Amino acid sequence: MTLDTPSAHPSAIDALRDLLGDRLVTTTADRDAHGRCETWYPPTPPEAVAYPETTEEVSEIVKLCQTHRCPVVACGAASALEGQHLAISGGISLDMTRMNRVLTVSAEDLHAVVQPGVTRHALNEDIRATGLYFPVDPGADASLGGMAATRASGTTAVRHGTMRENVLALEAVMADGTVIRTGSRARKSSTGYDLTHLLIGSEGTLGIITELTLRLQGVPEAVLAATCRFATVKDAVNCVIATIQSGLPMARIELLDEMMVRGFNLYSDSGLPERPHLFLEFTGTPASVTEQSGGFADIAEEFGMQAWQTATRTEERNALWSMRHKAHYASQALGGPGTQLYVTDVCVPISRLADAVTHAQSRARDLGLVSTIVGHVGDGNFHCGVSIDPTDRADLARASGFGHDLADMALRLGGTVSGEHGIGLGKRDLMHAEHGAAVDVMRAIKTALDPQDILNPGKLLPPEEGSEA
Amino acid sequence: MTLDTPSAHPSAIDALRDLLGDRLVTTTADRDAHGRCETWYPPTPPEAVAYPETTEEVSEIVKLCQTHRCPVVACGAASALEGQHLAISGGISLDMTRMNRVLTVSAEDLHAVVQPGVTRHALNEDIRATGLYFPVDPGADASLGGMAATRASGTTAVRHGTMRENVLALEAVMADGTVIRTGSRARKSSTGYDLTHLLIGSEGTLGIITELTLRLQGVPEAVLAATCRFATVKDAVNCVIATIQSGLPMARIELLDEMMVRGFNLYSDSGLPERPHLFLEFTGTPASVTEQSGGFADIAEEFGMQAWQTATRTEERNALWSMRHKAHYASQALGGPGTQLYVTDVCVPISRLADAVTHAQSRARDLGLVSTIVGHVGDGNFHCGVSIDPTDRADLARASGFGHDLADMALRLGGTVSGEHGIGLGKRDLMHAEHGAAVDVMRAIKTALDPQDILNPGKLLPPEEGSEA
Repeated sequence: MTLDTPSAHPSAIDALRDLLGDRLVTTTADRDAHGRCETWYPPTPPEAVAYPETTEEVSEIVKLCQTHRCPVVACGAASALEGQHLAISGGISLDMTRMNRVLTVSAEDLHAVVQPGVTRHALNEDIRATGLYFPVDPGADASLGGMAATRASGTTAVRHGTMRENVLALEAVMADGTVIRTGSRARKSSTGYDLTHLLIGSEGTLGIITELTLRLQGVPEAVLAATCRFATVKDAVNCVIATIQSGLPMARIELLDEMMVRGFNLYSDSGLPERPHLFLEFTGTPASVTEQSGGFADIAEEFGMQAWQTATRTEERNALWSMRHKAHYASQALGGPGTQLYVTDVCVPISRLADAVTHAQSRARDLGLVSTIVGHVGDGNFHCGVSIDPTDRADLARASGFGHDLADMALRLGGTVSGEHGIGLGKRDLMHAEHGAAVDVMRAIKTALDPQDILNPGKLLPPEEGSEA
Repeated sequence: MTLDTPSAHPSAIDALRDLLGDRLVTTTADRDAHGRCETWYPPTPPEAVAYPETTEEVSEIVKLCQTHRCPVVACGAASALEGQHLAISGGISLDMTRMNRVLTVSAEDLHAVVQPGVTRHALNEDIRATGLYFPVDPGADASLGGMAATRASGTTAVRHGTMRENVLALEAVMADGTVIRTGSRARKSSTGYDLTHLLIGSEGTLGIITELTLRLQGVPEAVLAATCRFATVKDAVNCVIATIQSGLPMARIELLDEMMVRGFNLYSDSGLPERPHLFLEFTGTPASVTEQSGGFADIAEEFGMQAWQTATRTEERNALWSMRHKAHYASQALGGPGTQLYVTDVCVPISRLADAVTHAQSRARDLGLVSTIVGHVGDGNFHCGVSIDPTDRADLARASGFGHDLADMALRLGGTVSGEHGIGLGKRDLMHAEHGAAVDVMRAIKTALDPQDILNPGKLLPPEEGSEA
């Protein structure tokens, strides 16, 4: 179903306006702002934008939407890359950004309770004085609710895991408006079905996350960042594989291919030679950081490391990771004005990473695509960013064919069609290939928990056979 | 529903015999063996025991049981402590112990694919030459399928997590006989609902696990075990809290209270002074182990550590952990001949651990119970083992009241009614107190995936109001 008019659910909009007053917005500007995505998905404005401020309001909104069968699409910082927050079936955008309070910080238990609209930077700013931080780092200053809903990860997952490992407990509003709590403040539990992990990565299709209890980590005593250069991507990746297999506790290990480095040179004048690089971080006590970086350098020598630069000062390290986090815009810079970025990511078992990366490069070359590779390679995860002309359907089709080829490859190698970007709109047609009969189990869960299909309809699950979608 | 006769489902038994031949056993000896539990639960023999050898057979068995509405209760090493494997509604015990092959070991990807009947010792024996090991260690030589089904953890969870963190992928047979695969061999994924974690801890009520892909760890270069003694449990626990808060990467940190030490002296002549002890393990490079143990000793001094003994030789370390793993039998020894053990466990946020442990001790004293405390205190998790006379209902009621008091306390402190033993039979009536409205969500999932309620009926979820149970 596509939205034809801005008033497909007028009775819902009226009821929501009665509830929220001027926090139910139907202006074109606000609807357009909520209909946009960082990547190539066409704009899809919702019918209205609701700005709840409490869990109770979220519950009331969902109940009203249930009554009026109006889709509810939760949205945080809108940094999702597969269109997860686009209201493709109409209905409302549930903007969670006003639920942005850090509720409690328990330094002694190494956790914080936050509302979903708190961004990761805001949380880390808030808790700076405690000597703790929240490690999951997807690059964008995403909202923590959105990060949980999309099972985000990023540069530090190699050490600290993804949102999967860093959320202790959730509060969520289910499709009938019921407020549930999952998990506890204890580190582990064996009581009942793991609803925390069922909600993490469910992309707003099973419930709306209204509160998160997050694990925090101690700020390490010593941090050393480094860059190193290799002659070929294969050397760089084989160095990563050997490093991970050696058990070295890397804090970060990121690959940038030649094209990505060229993007950084264009976008932020990085001055790096246009060769494959690894960006690294080591953390721990001063002695262990020295031991780790020495151990890594020994491995890297075996793979022909060409240059090795370290950064210990905070400003130098921040500059390095800030550059890395602009990979999206640096990839876009390669395409020049008027282009957009088609992005995809896959994740494979670490032993197959060199095969996967070199396949991606040669496939992009064969197709004549301008594509960068950048990735959290310690996890076997990498991204490709292809510049496309959004007005040229053939260009999009070519990029999309490339993405599907990578996904097929990832599955052949025992991996997954997305390590961290998720399914959203863009990879629904790959769900059967990856999950087979398990898709029916997922659908049974969705139907049981949201029988009217009001929570982010049309996302994550592929359309049922025979249905129009 | 209680089983009255051994043939409540005669048509199912006949059909299963046609399928399995002599691998469908109805002898009293075999049924009795599968009706027993390590703890106080009364014997509950199944109607028959089925011994599948392949996933396809498990699927066929489940399909037949679905047709005949016959309960299917999966069972591995039968070391569960809350009666998870008891066929309380009749039906068959599905004994998975013949599916005991290690299918593949990928040293380069640090994972192994195993059948569910492989025990953790058998796996570690099998992969010894690779320099890798599977860390999760619940004490008993449990089957890996059972460990996943009950979300087991144990002494190493403080470092490596529980089964929740160490299972990458599963194969499972669902209630209609469908075989699904969840997860992949990649380290992370953001594609679809997390069915792996939904099955982990579901106690055989949502599906039968027929294959597991497990994360392996490198055997550490250096290992140092140590014991240290404190004047009071409070000192010992406060030392643990400070250690965890300091971020020291403990490999193991276990508490034994005075009574537990007395049990070890009775059962295995440990020769330890009857004072609270911590049993510790440090792993890493030789330099980091020295750094860690020094860091720990500094903290322990602040809490009045009275004695500190280290063990570096493998035999010494094995003797220490072997003794620790016999806590169950050592607790039993305190009660003398004819007694049985009532065991319970709770898990609280680490900052509340001293409150929780001292409350448990004083409560046991007030009730005149002989109770040990032993625990994976780095996680905030501890166990009580109460000796009871199984022929004296008042004795069981008293122990059970103690267990419920501890559970209430754990919830008051923000924790969970079980860190690792699970719900099974014994804690179903605590599910509402811990999970509130989320119990209805769990029940909706159970109904959606097993509408006839044939998979381990009566476990994990509390009886619905108005139903007899």
